[in-house]
Amino acid sequence: MDDRIREHAEVLVDWSARVESGDDVVLSVDEGAHELAVAVAEALGERGANLVSVYHSAEIQRAYLRAHDSDFADDPEFERALYDNADAVLVLKGTRNTAGTADVPDDRQQTFARAREGVREARLATDWVKTLHPTRALAQQAGMAFEEYRDFVYDATLRDWESLATEMDRLKTILDDGSEVHIDAPGTDLTLSIENRTAVNSAASVDYDSHNLPSGEVFTAPAGVEGEVTFDVPMTVRGTTLRDVHLVFEDGEVVEHEAAAGEETVEALLSTDDGARRLGELGVGMNRGIDRYTDNILFDEKMAETVHLALGRAYDACLPDGEAGNESAIHVDLIADMSEDTTLSVDGEVIQRDGVFRWEDGV
Amino acid sequence: MDDRIREHAEVLVDWSARVESGDDVVLSVDEGAHELAVAVAEALGERGANLVSVYHSAEIQRAYLRAHDSDFADDPEFERALYDNADAVLVLKGTRNTAGTADVPDDRQQTFARAREGVREARLATDWVKTLHPTRALAQQAGMAFEEYRDFVYDATLRDWESLATEMDRLKTILDDGSEVHIDAPGTDLTLSIENRTAVNSAASVDYDSHNLPSGEVFTAPAGVEGEVTFDVPMTVRGTTLRDVHLVFEDGEVVEHEAAAGEETVEALLSTDDGARRLGELGVGMNRGIDRYTDNILFDEKMAETVHLALGRAYDACLPDGEAGNESAIHVDLIADMSEDTTLSVDGEVIQRDGVFRWEDGV
Repeated sequence: MDDRIREHAEVLVDWSARVESGDDVVLSVDEGAHELAVAVAEALGERGANLVSVYHSAEIQRAYLRAHDSDFADDPEFERALYDNADAVLVLKGTRNTAGTADVPDDRQQTFARAREGVREARLATDWVKTLHPTRALAQQAGMAFEEYRDFVYDATLRDWESLATEMDRLKTILDDGSEVHIDAPGTDLTLSIENRTAVNSAASVDYDSHNLPSGEVFTAPAGVEGEVTFDVPMTVRGTTLRDVHLVFEDGEVVEHEAAAGEETVEALLSTDDGARRLGELGVGMNRGIDRYTDNILFDEKMAETVHLALGRAYDACLPDGEAGNESAIHVDLIADMSEDTTLSVDGEVIQRDGVFRWEDGV
Repeated sequence: MDDRIREHAEVLVDWSARVESGDDVVLSVDEGAHELAVAVAEALGERGANLVSVYHSAEIQRAYLRAHDSDFADDPEFERALYDNADAVLVLKGTRNTAGTADVPDDRQQTFARAREGVREARLATDWVKTLHPTRALAQQAGMAFEEYRDFVYDATLRDWESLATEMDRLKTILDDGSEVHIDAPGTDLTLSIENRTAVNSAASVDYDSHNLPSGEVFTAPAGVEGEVTFDVPMTVRGTTLRDVHLVFEDGEVVEHEAAAGEETVEALLSTDDGARRLGELGVGMNRGIDRYTDNILFDEKMAETVHLALGRAYDACLPDGEAGNESAIHVDLIADMSEDTTLSVDGEVIQRDGVFRWEDGV
């Protein structure tokens, strides 16, 4: 076994999920994530945790959903009981075909998801962490050779998380104390109010309210938004690639939009509900192990030298107690490259220039 | 997909487990049983059942058990709750390596099994069925080519179960009404009392108290045993192959034993406890789709033209209400070929000669 797989398992179990002796851990294993599952099982055995492995297969899901008449039971008790009684859920993504459910009608998938909202909530109430084991299918989606993709995944995942958490805390403090963010870049001149909002230091650990491995972003929920922004990193949404999405905001709301590709999908997203025309998130990617776009949001939004904004729902963790943030059925991240001719400023002070933070070497 | 896989799934779901709309079904998927799992998921979707897939991997199990310090938690609630709330458990065997846990110490496996006795009971309280998807590893263990093994598995599994159940019911009636069974074969001259015992028509369906697919045996619990028996079908027990085990019984108890191979294992089995020297089961194989030994008890004991006797524990289903049968920590089946120079008689009447029942053609 590649040593990096074992290291990945240890980071997941110890840093990310903080598993302790006696913990009840559900391991959700994708078809292609078997090897990582073996390494995780070893780590869980060493920690003295209890283990139930759940099999997550796109092919099983497809066969089941296509055959079903869509009258799904609400939150089957046997499944809910598993998660209600679990301390942690470790989700090992690793599909063998990213289009594995391509011929399942969208509305059936959505009906199924809605029927199992309680199961989902029970899972999210645990110390859950989602990570990814490199497969050929994911390498293909990223446009990379398998060997190359594995190096990419481990560079992104096997970070010095403690050190990155400390660095990200500097940005969190600036955002927590600040009132206004300004983003200046080619095609972008955007001002976002962040007064009284709390930033999340997403350091790939449940101890930081962070449930992705890798992570490496600091995000908050903007209150008001004015100006224009161009998202020059491509993004696949609902099977469609969006390119160079350009949005104009007035009073926090999108008033103009265009895109070099995927214009119809952008239009559909914005029409979902009122909240879909407003922003729910401003995120700053800080994971320098992620140096390229791979068409996978688990990595893309944490890429160093990028910022992302999400249309739709805001996270409660960023809001003052009792205050409701932007509400919407969607939360769609769009990413802008910040590596050239850019500044990111807070209250008039430049925090990052051309992708480099002021506390980094050479600034 | 091989049409036989889909047919296998339908027999499992409909004939064996009797799954109905709204049933909560746990699908336990071995590493190599993926294709059958996809077909079963389709059948479960069609029936409107709810589905949780559990991943059963020898490699995960090995990694976990070897790393653990053996102080296992008793019946972890999250796992127990899953089975307590399930209607059916479909176990799809299909290992990729029959020696997958060979380097896990026996005592650790046993300690683990003991700690999870309550989970096991919860699983056995459902409409559970165990079946098998052909893999290369299982073909190898059977000494067969993969293609050949697949044909063997489907010949054994895709029977006309309704018709076989009717035929087996004839033998069940004879055994239920009878007082004494006599087995005469080369190296065998054995008399077993079956007075007041009830035979089980094991027709591969929970409706027949039968939890294996394939099945195809009629079994009961003998009360008294006198004489000698030779088990000329090989049997792997605890990793050791037993050949030509010869036992002599007096007053129901083994008083002499020898074996052409595996003598030490036979000795160890008989020394387990008092009940280990007595018989818990007399079974008659009636599945004509199983025409050869494949070193897998799921098939071997159902082989047509064989009988098997089990040292150790008897099944409650065969006993009069309130009567305790033979008790033991073990239940080890040993098989005798009945195809040549044999008779199986009940109360002096020949029921089967040279492997052919009296109601079959040519008798």
